[in-house]
Amino acid sequence: MKLLRVGPPGGERPAVLDDAGRPRDLRGLLGPGADFDRDFFASGQIERVASALRDGDLPLIGEDATARTGAPLARPGKIVCIGLNYRDHAAETGAPIPAEPVVFMKAANTVVGPYDEVLIPRGSVKTDWEVELGVVIGRTARYLDSHEEALACVAGYVLSHDVSEREFQLERGGQWDKGKSCETFNPLGPWLVTADEVPDPQNLGLRLWVNGELRQDGGTKDMVFEVAEVVRYLSQFMVLEPGDLINTGTPAGVALGMPGQPFLRAGDVVELEIDGLGRQRQTVGQA
Amino acid sequence: MKLLRVGPPGGERPAVLDDAGRPRDLRGLLGPGADFDRDFFASGQIERVASALRDGDLPLIGEDATARTGAPLARPGKIVCIGLNYRDHAAETGAPIPAEPVVFMKAANTVVGPYDEVLIPRGSVKTDWEVELGVVIGRTARYLDSHEEALACVAGYVLSHDVSEREFQLERGGQWDKGKSCETFNPLGPWLVTADEVPDPQNLGLRLWVNGELRQDGGTKDMVFEVAEVVRYLSQFMVLEPGDLINTGTPAGVALGMPGQPFLRAGDVVELEIDGLGRQRQTVGQA
Repeated sequence: MKLLRVGPPGGERPAVLDDAGRPRDLRGLLGPGADFDRDFFASGQIERVASALRDGDLPLIGEDATARTGAPLARPGKIVCIGLNYRDHAAETGAPIPAEPVVFMKAANTVVGPYDEVLIPRGSVKTDWEVELGVVIGRTARYLDSHEEALACVAGYVLSHDVSEREFQLERGGQWDKGKSCETFNPLGPWLVTADEVPDPQNLGLRLWVNGELRQDGGTKDMVFEVAEVVRYLSQFMVLEPGDLINTGTPAGVALGMPGQPFLRAGDVVELEIDGLGRQRQTVGQA
Repeated sequence: MKLLRVGPPGGERPAVLDDAGRPRDLRGLLGPGADFDRDFFASGQIERVASALRDGDLPLIGEDATARTGAPLARPGKIVCIGLNYRDHAAETGAPIPAEPVVFMKAANTVVGPYDEVLIPRGSVKTDWEVELGVVIGRTARYLDSHEEALACVAGYVLSHDVSEREFQLERGGQWDKGKSCETFNPLGPWLVTADEVPDPQNLGLRLWVNGELRQDGGTKDMVFEVAEVVRYLSQFMVLEPGDLINTGTPAGVALGMPGQPFLRAGDVVELEIDGLGRQRQTVGQA
């Protein structure tokens, strides 16, 4: 299934795409105030949505209400990110390939919709792009023993844009979160694709364009640490909860690693996609 | 006022201490499901609580329901931490005094009550203590211009224990979050003391004992970056929201900086306090 949220910022309603690709309203099924959040995933509601969709019980949403697509996940409990998780990206930034996952975090209120504006922070001259495979947690993960257990904790996958300010990240004290948590820095969606529809998360192409020029063109097969290992590993250091988001790293092709470092400027247009997970498009503005 | 939450884990109810130090129930006033969270702070409910307390309208809570004190804040939207923010602590860890705040994050689901057990993570041999002044945000903070504006965004202050695993933090990739986000790593409380009752947040003593021995004995007057500057500074890099928590750094005296590095072991007892913000006591267990 493809889960999504439509409506104005802060007023999104949960929905699911039907076989014809039309959004069906889940408010009636899930109750008022229900959303794709910790409670939703923790209480096994995905099965309930699938069943209602099969039975044809869900009303269509009128076109006026679908004018905007929000992030397909309500505010995550946390966003955990893996750094330097593609060999070619580590090489382009001059970093060695990590011996174990590099872990940092991104403020959860950076999440915006897939077509929303991305803002260059005030004082920034090094705002950069990063297309990433996002993993949405469906079950509490704590000290997992195996990759099988880890994949069983994954609710689904989502296209995630881990926007990054390189000066804030790398030159302002050395802890990366400062350059990862700026307003609008995590466009997400358009869909949360449930795990059953992504049989092999290590066989997905990722691409990103800036003003129509292809900048990133990678594949999740080149991850240093695969999704199952990332989830197993993280669960040794923190408790992952339903509705949490993991950004699993970006392939080569970011501005930081390019000749001339063509960082983003107001007016730029960024487009990105992952096989089967849809496409995003953001215009860059100024905070 | 002193706000607190009493009841079993996950079932805490919001309360306020009256003049006699007895907890008064806020569920009737605030409505079912209300808690000390983003909505509470964003909608100016502190004033409403103050008014009801003055009017004597709030029922006492029976002793059976107050057997456990939880964290005085529902799950924060984020926990932002300032590293090396006391000169003596920077010195004991061998780090230079930062030219600007070092910023990292802690998973929000690390928060536990002030008397709850702290768990040493599996595989850990370097679990350490850190007494800190916690700042609770009451109003959205975005690109603040002045220290006055910054202090106006503070709802109150709280005693915060920023438990840290030094090997995970410092020797496993270099990004600190990995050693800061383990289960139970942020005991908080007992109270959220509203800002009006803390006229000078830079004049508070902080102390921490392990098994009765005084290990940290500092004062917020020795912060490198004061509370107002921390809030103003952070608002340049991220949007702080009502209910967010900032841990403002720890003074000298952590295990990492002591001869022999006497890190925590199961069975240890940690006690900590800040002037006017109450006292915590945790027994250390093993995850």
